[in-house]
Amino acid sequence: MTHLYFEDMEVGDRCTAGPYLITKSEIIQFAKQYDPVPRHIDEEAAARTIFGGLTACSAHTFSVFILLTTKLQPRFHVLAGMGWDELRLPNPVRPGDELDLELTVLEKRESKSKSDRGIVRTRVLLRNQRRDTALECSSNIFVARRPDVNAPPLS
Amino acid sequence: MTHLYFEDMEVGDRCTAGPYLITKSEIIQFAKQYDPVPRHIDEEAAARTIFGGLTACSAHTFSVFILLTTKLQPRFHVLAGMGWDELRLPNPVRPGDELDLELTVLEKRESKSKSDRGIVRTRVLLRNQRRDTALECSSNIFVARRPDVNAPPLS
Repeated sequence: MTHLYFEDMEVGDRCTAGPYLITKSEIIQFAKQYDPVPRHIDEEAAARTIFGGLTACSAHTFSVFILLTTKLQPRFHVLAGMGWDELRLPNPVRPGDELDLELTVLEKRESKSKSDRGIVRTRVLLRNQRRDTALECSSNIFVARRPDVNAPPLS
Repeated sequence: MTHLYFEDMEVGDRCTAGPYLITKSEIIQFAKQYDPVPRHIDEEAAARTIFGGLTACSAHTFSVFILLTTKLQPRFHVLAGMGWDELRLPNPVRPGDELDLELTVLEKRESKSKSDRGIVRTRVLLRNQRRDTALECSSNIFVARRPDVNAPPLS
C-alpha cells in the first residue's frame, strides 16, 4: 500500500475510513472497564437519562476515532501525533451506529528544526449513518517528507 | 459520599484520583482492539522505535484519564462534559507505570441559559510515578448548582 508523504498532500485533501459498527455489548464492555457509570453500562438506568438510552462513553468514541485513523485511505506517512484541539462530542453514539471518519488537510508547513518531517493540521469528523457528528477536533500531525526530496539530483 | 455543587467550588481547588497501575497485558490488549500498530502490540517492534519499548496507545491513556475522573475526591456533581482543549500526551505511558490524576479549578461561571448549572473550567494533569506528565488538557464541565440556591427562604 502506498503512503503519502508531506510533499504529496495539499490543503483541502481528504481521506476517509469506516464504517465501524458499534454494538451494545462493546459499549457495555468498554464502559465497565473505563467509565463504569450507570448511563453507559445499565440499559434501565440509561433509559432514564436525558439521552433516553444507552450511549458509548467518551473514551470509547475517542478510541473508535483512533482505530479509524489506522485505516485511513489514502494513508499518510505519519511519524507522530502532536495532540488534539477543541475536541467535542456533540452527539451521542448509540448501539447499532455506524461511524466513519473524515480527515481534511487544513494547513501544512515544513518543520524548522527537523528536515525529515512536515507539520500538517487536519480537521477531524467522526459521523454516524445519519451524518450527525459524534466527534470533532483538529489535530496536528508530523508527516514524513519524501526521503529523496533534499538529495542532490542523480547525475 | 458527598458531592460538591457549583457553589462549593473555588478557583484553585484541586481534586485527585489514582494511582492506576498499567500492565503490559492491558497495553497490548487495548491496542489490539483500538490501535493495532506494531509499536503498541509487539515488544520486539516497539524496542526498535524511538521509545525503545512498548508504550500505551493514545486512546488507552485517554481512557485511563476518563476512568480516574470517575474516582476523583472530592467529587463534583458533574452533569456533563463539554469537551477538551489542547489535549497533549507529552510523555509515553509504559508497562508498570502508576498514573494519577489531578484536576484544578481554573474558572467558574453561572450558565446564562440554564439556572440549574454552572460551567467550570479545569486543568487536567495525568502523571506517572516519576511526576512526568502523560496527558494534559483543559476541560469544561457543567456542574450542578445547589438545588435550593434559588429557592425563597423558609419563613
